[in-house]
Amino acid sequence: MTDIPSNHPRYHSLLLRERLIEGLHRGLASEAGLLAHGRGEAFDYLLGERTQPFATEAIEVTSALLLTAKHPVFSVNGSAAALAGREIADLVAGHDRLLIEVNLFHHTPERSRRIADYLRALGVPRVLESVSDDSVPLPSIQHARKHMHREGIASADVVVVALEDGDRCQALVEAGKQVIAIDLNPLSRTARLAQVTIVDEITRALHVLKVAMAADRKRAHEELSGRLARYNNEAVLQRAVAAIRSGL
Amino acid sequence: MTDIPSNHPRYHSLLLRERLIEGLHRGLASEAGLLAHGRGEAFDYLLGERTQPFATEAIEVTSALLLTAKHPVFSVNGSAAALAGREIADLVAGHDRLLIEVNLFHHTPERSRRIADYLRALGVPRVLESVSDDSVPLPSIQHARKHMHREGIASADVVVVALEDGDRCQALVEAGKQVIAIDLNPLSRTARLAQVTIVDEITRALHVLKVAMAADRKRAHEELSGRLARYNNEAVLQRAVAAIRSGL
Repeated sequence: MTDIPSNHPRYHSLLLRERLIEGLHRGLASEAGLLAHGRGEAFDYLLGERTQPFATEAIEVTSALLLTAKHPVFSVNGSAAALAGREIADLVAGHDRLLIEVNLFHHTPERSRRIADYLRALGVPRVLESVSDDSVPLPSIQHARKHMHREGIASADVVVVALEDGDRCQALVEAGKQVIAIDLNPLSRTARLAQVTIVDEITRALHVLKVAMAADRKRAHEELSGRLARYNNEAVLQRAVAAIRSGL
Repeated sequence: MTDIPSNHPRYHSLLLRERLIEGLHRGLASEAGLLAHGRGEAFDYLLGERTQPFATEAIEVTSALLLTAKHPVFSVNGSAAALAGREIADLVAGHDRLLIEVNLFHHTPERSRRIADYLRALGVPRVLESVSDDSVPLPSIQHARKHMHREGIASADVVVVALEDGDRCQALVEAGKQVIAIDLNPLSRTARLAQVTIVDEITRALHVLKVAMAADRKRAHEELSGRLARYNNEAVLQRAVAAIRSGL
């Protein structure tokens, strides 16, 4: 797939670009996804391309939320699938109550099905699609992304969104969901509207999350709930902005 | 071409995205160009999506350089052509000594020819291509982008590069050219290596440059040379970084 030498200083970043371009060629990702990824790259570059302490803190709270949730769902779009399909499959392998639902900004039935099939091929046992005969609408947003699968996001208490637009994030919060966003721009509407914002590159964040969840599975629910109660997302975002500022 | 309402707060930014995606479909721009544009968008967003005073200062020096140069050449790649083909044609219409040369990172003869034809169709009378029978190599860099047209960049004293990679910028400077870079990331190698760096979005920068050149055409060469002598690119870059920091 790649001829990037693995000791190249920007190996991981270049590999992600290849994954996304390959995802575009396979009909998983969109051109808008390439532009959005470039924006994320700029923020990641200013963050030193590593998982920062404020991201680790948000990831630990995410671990607690996913382990204590009644019905957690990960909303996956084309870019997330192309970039982090393997990491999503790994996460589900370690926590089989986490459901995957495909939800697209630029929806076509073919693209949704291709992404679902791609995730199944990577080992995710059950992948829902937002647009289906079992859809219910999320109020106040337009387009195909308003759909929720009745057994998925519609009945979820905790929803993870990655690389998501602000309108949908807001609508999910207003619908009473606890929303965890993975977003490299701490100033974005999504980052500011979510209850928990992981300001980190998605594949790195999901790897750290998987490790955190493996350790947290042994902890009592009270301990995990205490972690949630102490968490302050606004402070996390402020630290992310400060880190970018000092990266300049 | 577009259904973005012109009073949309991000109209210009969305229009540029459309131009670039259309450029990809026409075979002018590359997928890597979409990623790079996304990175630029993030910096432009932090700069408030407007031409800042440090950019205006660099543009005024660029005007002086282009008007006093013996043989100025604008090196145009696929993204620059797709995003700013019209603005490039406008600039040449006002300063016919400025030659246009197509130079591509991801070169194919077909893409190079398509870009040259596209610029000609927009009214640029003479468009050279770096890879041709009249090519000479630029030392120390690899790939097709090392080529320079004998009558173009090879014999130029002043070269404008837009959205350029650091290696080629460095090689041009080492070859004794005065290099003017248009680059939204003031920390990039290109931005730091060029003698004059315009930290601004390309279409805005070229519009301001055209206006500056129209006014400067009446000025004495001594006045323009004085402007060059007083210019400090490092200070301009520091102001750009400070502006991004305060945009956070």
